[in-house]
Amino acid sequence: MKKVLFATTALIATASVAAADVRISGYGRFGLDYNDGNDSNVNGVSSTTITSRLRLQFDMSAETDSGVGFDARFRAQAESRDNVANGAGFNGARFGVTYQGFRVNVGNIIGAVENTPGTYLETRTAGLGIDGAGFVSHVGNVSNEYFNWDAYSSGGTGVNGVEALYSANGFTGHISYSQRNDSTVNPGVGNGAANAAARAAIMMAYTFGDWTVAGSYQDSDIAWEDKAIISVQGDLGQFGVRVAYADNDGIGKWGLYGNYEIGAASKIVAFVTSEDAVDAADVTAGRGDNRDGIAGSNLGEGESYGIHYSYDLGGGASFETGYRRASNDNDTFQAGVYFSF
Amino acid sequence: MKKVLFATTALIATASVAAADVRISGYGRFGLDYNDGNDSNVNGVSSTTITSRLRLQFDMSAETDSGVGFDARFRAQAESRDNVANGAGFNGARFGVTYQGFRVNVGNIIGAVENTPGTYLETRTAGLGIDGAGFVSHVGNVSNEYFNWDAYSSGGTGVNGVEALYSANGFTGHISYSQRNDSTVNPGVGNGAANAAARAAIMMAYTFGDWTVAGSYQDSDIAWEDKAIISVQGDLGQFGVRVAYADNDGIGKWGLYGNYEIGAASKIVAFVTSEDAVDAADVTAGRGDNRDGIAGSNLGEGESYGIHYSYDLGGGASFETGYRRASNDNDTFQAGVYFSF
Amino acid sequence: MKKVLFATTALIATASVAAADVRISGYGRFGLDYNDGNDSNVNGVSSTTITSRLRLQFDMSAETDSGVGFDARFRAQAESRDNVANGAGFNGARFGVTYQGFRVNVGNIIGAVENTPGTYLETRTAGLGIDGAGFVSHVGNVSNEYFNWDAYSSGGTGVNGVEALYSANGFTGHISYSQRNDSTVNPGVGNGAANAAARAAIMMAYTFGDWTVAGSYQDSDIAWEDKAIISVQGDLGQFGVRVAYADNDGIGKWGLYGNYEIGAASKIVAFVTSEDAVDAADVTAGRGDNRDGIAGSNLGEGESYGIHYSYDLGGGASFETGYRRASNDNDTFQAGVYFSF
Repeated sequence: MKKVLFATTALIATASVAAADVRISGYGRFGLDYNDGNDSNVNGVSSTTITSRLRLQFDMSAETDSGVGFDARFRAQAESRDNVANGAGFNGARFGVTYQGFRVNVGNIIGAVENTPGTYLETRTAGLGIDGAGFVSHVGNVSNEYFNWDAYSSGGTGVNGVEALYSANGFTGHISYSQRNDSTVNPGVGNGAANAAARAAIMMAYTFGDWTVAGSYQDSDIAWEDKAIISVQGDLGQFGVRVAYADNDGIGKWGLYGNYEIGAASKIVAFVTSEDAVDAADVTAGRGDNRDGIAGSNLGEGESYGIHYSYDLGGGASFETGYRRASNDNDTFQAGVYFSF
Repeated sequence: MKKVLFATTALIATASVAAADVRISGYGRFGLDYNDGNDSNVNGVSSTTITSRLRLQFDMSAETDSGVGFDARFRAQAESRDNVANGAGFNGARFGVTYQGFRVNVGNIIGAVENTPGTYLETRTAGLGIDGAGFVSHVGNVSNEYFNWDAYSSGGTGVNGVEALYSANGFTGHISYSQRNDSTVNPGVGNGAANAAARAAIMMAYTFGDWTVAGSYQDSDIAWEDKAIISVQGDLGQFGVRVAYADNDGIGKWGLYGNYEIGAASKIVAFVTSEDAVDAADVTAGRGDNRDGIAGSNLGEGESYGIHYSYDLGGGASFETGYRRASNDNDTFQAGVYFSF
Repeated sequence: MKKVLFATTALIATASVAAADVRISGYGRFGLDYNDGNDSNVNGVSSTTITSRLRLQFDMSAETDSGVGFDARFRAQAESRDNVANGAGFNGARFGVTYQGFRVNVGNIIGAVENTPGTYLETRTAGLGIDGAGFVSHVGNVSNEYFNWDAYSSGGTGVNGVEALYSANGFTGHISYSQRNDSTVNPGVGNGAANAAARAAIMMAYTFGDWTVAGSYQDSDIAWEDKAIISVQGDLGQFGVRVAYADNDGIGKWGLYGNYEIGAASKIVAFVTSEDAVDAADVTAGRGDNRDGIAGSNLGEGESYGIHYSYDLGGGASFETGYRRASNDNDTFQAGVYFSF
């Protein structure tokens, strides 16, 4: 009975119903996080903690008589990491206009670099374990420069940008632009005031048969944020392979990735990355400091690797576990469950 | 049908249906705002910025066996203005009790002056353009005193007041009362503590045929908030005309308004207002300073005018655009889309 | 089909539907609170104020093929007390795993002591009047130590704990554990950091026929939080009787409770409690100060009593009123309405 109603009435609160005016979806994930970077006697955080997230997402939509679609997305999520729990307000909104293969978004945009196929892991978290484990597998994350590109923000207001996407016949193109606040001109003002540092980015991807190639580039007013990424991935039935490379304003990073489906419910994902050292002249100029303030992000040059295992429990739930060693010898192991609704 | 669905599954749906236990509705609007009061080199904000809002509203209701209704309203909205984006929490709640033509509200009340017919523009935003463009057309907004009456707050907790409304046979009566915090008595306490400045207001409106006349009055403990408003409006088929006048504690403001429906989808709204100068004795006493802190609110005496055009796109979406010149020569032009769900 | 249903059903999400993926429920309650502890001329708060709460709750769930259930709970509520209104963000999330009679929760847990049957009043608020009136009837609330046990937090992130529950054949067992932040080790970090004060608790209850006996114990690293509670309650048709006792780390508190249903819609609940004085040695050691900062919590030794009357209005709504005198001679009287959705 439930499925029949889902098919006929619209709007329920599941993720799988299209054309609803308001759609509620989301996921919960929780488990244990062992991180040898934590130590009760050093930073006051146990090496093993609960990691969790509950996401509740509202997608609103309307369609004009001429077939132009308008939509908006709003999200609230609560998290716990390193034994610190946070409640949640709503984030910044993203607004969209769609017509056939075109989409224009304003506000809390996706971002062209963020949207590059072949950059995140083929897991439910898009990273390793239960909470992504720092996303060291992403070739755009190097040294102390993590997530220094425009991306949809779940916990904040995002970059207040504008972007255009086009998809047709296996091709996807994406350009995005944003400005960030210049606090010296406009003290006290949040994200996105004028006279600010701007980021412009472009992404193109093409899928032919089992293979997808993609490339993206970001030009930023902020030091060391220029970035070029390319990736090639193949989906070969049970197997998937992928290679990616990024030039992060002089720091090259290679990544090799594979995934393998075992039987009907199990899947293994593994990766290894190799990151170049920071150029000596850049270090002299201040690069390599912990500028972005992300804990544990000073991963430095060298190899990172990891392996993830997923088991589908049915009904939208799965067991997820993963281990990774970052290039700075930081080890994490996580295991838990993930369910979507 | 409704009861069957209640018994078999949980679902949600859309805006236009009454008697639901929880109703989710709202709107999105976004577009470009040209404001000659902004200048990158002066206040650090570009003269043209994205203006947007996403509103998500929850209306809860229950009805007793004797026909008394209880309801409550809760709202979360994210905005971007002047290139500053804000996420959103829920606002203060409004609770209501209804019986036949009577309604009593407590909490984040509507407010009797706010509810006066014939004071806001006949547009989807109730003002000009995409975000109201400062609502200079309202006869209650003068000099530096904008929105100095009790009104439902979408972004805050509101005034924590109480109000009673009665409607029957074209007549509507509305009285409201609230107290605001006196920070000298109760430092650190938010809205609505006792020993506070109080506002009392009354509104009456009567509709006969195509015409509605309305009047309201606010008596406030706060200087320069006493206020009397009258309006007359006529809905003459394709045409609508309206005149309004307010005595804002000595500052008179006239407004003349017209709207015209062109064909099935287009509508034009235009207005002109004329505001008296602040009395010299009042200026000596401190009136006319930017007391309320609203940017650009120091509009001063003289004429304001504006024109708005709306085109219905179907499916709850429309194109909205408008230009207005305020009495302080501030020009704004806005264009964008608005969709409800 | 969609449009037809939109026109006839719309929007549901009621409390009474099981097996939904996302369930929206909640309640509104509002009324008047007379509290002789407030005085406009003393603390700036009128002795009579509006007390209100609007709760909106989201329950998410999924079930695996093997019958293991996963769920999560998220809540936002706005309140007004003592004439101060607050808007609301979402609280901390609670995640659960269920299988037959077992449940394991992590995050914003229920808490074993909180979950002890026979400790809260048999009213819709679980306390007296419209907002609980300080919950002086609870035997675990003594002196200045109110709610010093782990409990689900509606307004904050909760204790970020873990707990296990088992129910079968009238038996319920519950163990919970949490750590709270040690701000000296981890300054600036919120709830739940390591090297922190821990609470462990256990609860067991058994129902045989009309009677339920229950006992719980909390062991805490924080001074004066060790706590043992026992209760016996009987549901004898129209009548209910209950007795409870707690040893609150040396402060004993007895409670005797009764409830009586009059006809089809009316119910009366009454209680009396007797609390021991704080031991002189403990007072010397600092006990009895207003350590927890809860206004009006310095209730001291002696008797508290109260009476509550409820009238069912149908449709999920009821009229609720209650008077209580706390052992410190503080009187409160409240009356208002409560409706759930």
